[in-house]
Order: sequence, then C-alpha cells, then structure tokens
Amino acid sequence: MRLALGLCYDGQAWQGWQTQPSGRTVQDALEAALAQFLAEPTATICAGRTDTGVHALQQVVHLDTDSVRRDQSWVRGLNALLPKTVSVQWAHPVGADFHARFDARARTYLYVLRCASVRSPILQGRVGWVHDVLDVVAMRRAAALLLGEHDFSAFRAAQCQAASPVRTLQALEVEERGCFLVFEFRANAFLHHMVRNLMGALVMVGRGRRDPGWVADLLRQKDRRLAAPTFMPDGLYLAHVFYPQAPDLPLVTPQRALARHLGL
Amino acid sequence: MRLALGLCYDGQAWQGWQTQPSGRTVQDALEAALAQFLAEPTATICAGRTDTGVHALQQVVHLDTDSVRRDQSWVRGLNALLPKTVSVQWAHPVGADFHARFDARARTYLYVLRCASVRSPILQGRVGWVHDVLDVVAMRRAAALLLGEHDFSAFRAAQCQAASPVRTLQALEVEERGCFLVFEFRANAFLHHMVRNLMGALVMVGRGRRDPGWVADLLRQKDRRLAAPTFMPDGLYLAHVFYPQAPDLPLVTPQRALARHLGL
Repeated sequence: MRLALGLCYDGQAWQGWQTQPSGRTVQDALEAALAQFLAEPTATICAGRTDTGVHALQQVVHLDTDSVRRDQSWVRGLNALLPKTVSVQWAHPVGADFHARFDARARTYLYVLRCASVRSPILQGRVGWVHDVLDVVAMRRAAALLLGEHDFSAFRAAQCQAASPVRTLQALEVEERGCFLVFEFRANAFLHHMVRNLMGALVMVGRGRRDPGWVADLLRQKDRRLAAPTFMPDGLYLAHVFYPQAPDLPLVTPQRALARHLGL
Repeated sequence: MRLALGLCYDGQAWQGWQTQPSGRTVQDALEAALAQFLAEPTATICAGRTDTGVHALQQVVHLDTDSVRRDQSWVRGLNALLPKTVSVQWAHPVGADFHARFDARARTYLYVLRCASVRSPILQGRVGWVHDVLDVVAMRRAAALLLGEHDFSAFRAAQCQAASPVRTLQALEVEERGCFLVFEFRANAFLHHMVRNLMGALVMVGRGRRDPGWVADLLRQKDRRLAAPTFMPDGLYLAHVFYPQAPDLPLVTPQRALARHLGL
C-alpha cells in the first residue's frame, strides 16, 4: 500500500529535508520513527526538499508499506516517536502510482517577515526580520514583473542541480498583517534558493535601494552576481503542494495552514 | 540616574527571571550585558519575577547608573550583547523614586492556547496546547466568578512567599482567534503560579469536566488540593505593567504587544 503523510516541522532544528550522513535531517528523523513504528526500514519521498532552516506547514511525503493501520493510528503512533520539532498532521492512503514529487503541479512557499526597529526573541528563527519600513506598493510592482514563465538564472544558487532554469511563477503576493508582511510564492517548481533570492531582491526594492523595474533587468541579464544576496531562511515555510490527480488529500490552503500553525 | 528598560524574552531559554547560582536566568543575562556595556556591576529590579518557561512581552526593569547615553544607545548597545532569546525593546529615564516592582499598580498576563487535534512544532513552547475543543462560553462564565477581590489560596503554589493570599483580579477575558484562544488576566499582583493554576481550572471547565460555578467553590474552600493541576507555562506571557505615576513609559497595550511579537 502507498501512503501519503502531511508533515509540519521547525526547520531551525534540522539540516534540511534530505537524508545526510550526519543523520540530522527531517527525512532521517521521519525514517527513524517509521523504522521503530513498523520494525522495518521504510524509504520516503517528499514533495519539496527544503534547505537547512526552512520550515514546513504542509510537506507531503509518500512511502510504501504492507502495514495496515487506521489513518489516526499512523498520526498518533508516529508523533509519539518523533521529536517535538516534527509532527505528522495527517495520513492518507493513495493510489500505487501517486508520487509526492513528480505528481506535484505547484508548490506554495510563504515568507513571513517582521518589520520592526528592534529584534524580538519570541518568533526568532520563525520569521525573517528587517528593521526598516518597506514600501509594499513598490514590492508589489516588482512582484508583478516576476510572474509567468521566465529563465530564473539570476535567482538560482550556484549549486542548483535542476536541468533547466525556466520556471513558471504562478503567484507572488505581498500581504500586510500589522508589523508582519506575508509573501506568497506559487510556482510549478522552484530552483535552489529561488524564494530566498527573490526575497532578497524584493527587500532591496522595498527599501528603495532599487526601482521595481530592476527585477525585470535581472531576469533579462540571467546573472546571479547582479542580483541581491540570498535572504535569511528564518521566515520561509513550504505551505502547500498541489496534486490535481489526488484531490482528496487533506491539504488546506497556504493561508489556512499559516493561521493554524502561526496564528497569523 | 535611574533608568527603566522594557524587556522581551523567550522564557523557554531561561530558568525564570530571578538570579540564581546557575547563572541561567534572565536577570543574570541582563546584568552580564550591563556589566559589559558599563564596565561595572549594575543591579536590576523587575516588575514581575517570571518563572521558568514563562515569556515576557513587556517586562519592566529599573536600574541606577552614572552613565549618560541616548535611549537608543542603551537599546542597541545592550541588544548587541544579549543572547537572541532576550531583547531590550526600549530604555527611558525615570525619576529617582521610580520602582519597577512597588510602583506597579497592575500586571497583565496573556495565555495563548492552541486548540488542535495534532501538536504543531512551529509555536512549540510558545503556546499552550489542548487537543480538545473548549467551551468558551462556559469558561467566560467561570471567569466572571473569579473577578474582584478574593482569597486566591486555591490557586496559590505551596512555595508562594506572599504575605497575603488576597488579590484583586481586575480583568479575565477569553478571546477566540481561529484555533487559538487568548486569555487575558489583569490583577494588582499575582500569587506564585496563580495564572497557571487559574488556567488549569478554566481548561477543566472548558472541557466540560466541571461546571463554571466550580471556580466559586474553589475560592470559598481555599484549598489548593481541590483545584486543577498547574497548567503548562508554554503559552504564558507577562504582557503589561501599569504605572499610574509614570505615564510616559513607552508601554503599549497587552494586545498590541502580542500583535507586535507574535502576530496574533
């Protein structure tokens, strides 16, 4: 049987999703809990391999198993074995051909940014921080220029292993909630560090250091060195994955997931 | 010169406010930063001595110093020396007779409770958690019975050192924000563990295990052993201190402080 799991985790506690010899990744923690729960090694595949420090509200994972359990038994059993920094939000049987990575038609990342003159310890590591007031209108203008299918080489990490730098950015919205800004990025897929590199550019525009049109220049120039530095991972959340072929997975909208876990 | 500071801290990182031989308290961290910043030992006195695991949005502290600095220099200088889990939000000169503890006429604590069937890693340690849906109307009825001047012996820790168990609860409100509940407690002062013990009783009522009138029985019986267990510290925040004689301190309302730091 193939099973899908919805995972939430605090990225600060982990060296990203993907298994490493150190064993300090989310995949290692999940597979250790599965091995204990099922008394046999079980491999997992995820929708989006998040980096060190990047959180997930709704990471989707699939695995194959011969064990038959009720959905709630998977959730409770695995959560009892997982550390506090990871939790299974739901478990759901899927067809034998479901693939968490290849079937995903869109991923949504949210970036939560706190704009305040003094740092706060309360959400430290869970939100990004700028001490300036940012120009939201200018950032929205820049966001509009990034929408659609583009060669995103200017926003791609040197170590990115994707075959093509072309991605389709389906949505990029900036919402104000008191002293927090919530940035929503939706694309068919993302290049390595793409959201953090886009955030770096948007914050430059928000600070008035560059005009909104600068991001269109960056897209044309395709040169990472001309763009802004990679922004801190602290406020970045994998918030949603879209599977048109599996509409019954218990996923909620990115905004609803944020409200459930962060209250924002 | 006497100086007042507004402090925010993540209580999980510390063994409470008050200095201890371990040195792992907020007071120890602040006094270490002050000693480094001023190159001389400087004693501090706070408005409310929070316990291990209890956070502060607006703790107020006073100290005496001969150093003359701009308010922003205090904030930036101390924050550069403090760990990420503590920050000075403001500094403000006060009269020589100002006393952070004795001049405080009211303290407000907020308790943030997440109601959800599955635990979340994102605000783990920063909010309390119940997996039940609580009856808010019943909790509000119980809250109304707790208002006013009472002998709060039923809600007082055995180790409480206060001379009298009588306190005046000026406000106790329960507000719903999505899957979070925000409880606001305002009193002239609080007994040791009083808010966590009141939370324990309110959650019992919210779960339907006791009627709202039970809390009035507890007040009458004055017996800690008959009341509910002490609730977890995770969601508890010292959110405001009221100084009628020092109206120019840059304090904001408890709700505004919560919005600034937690977004809720």
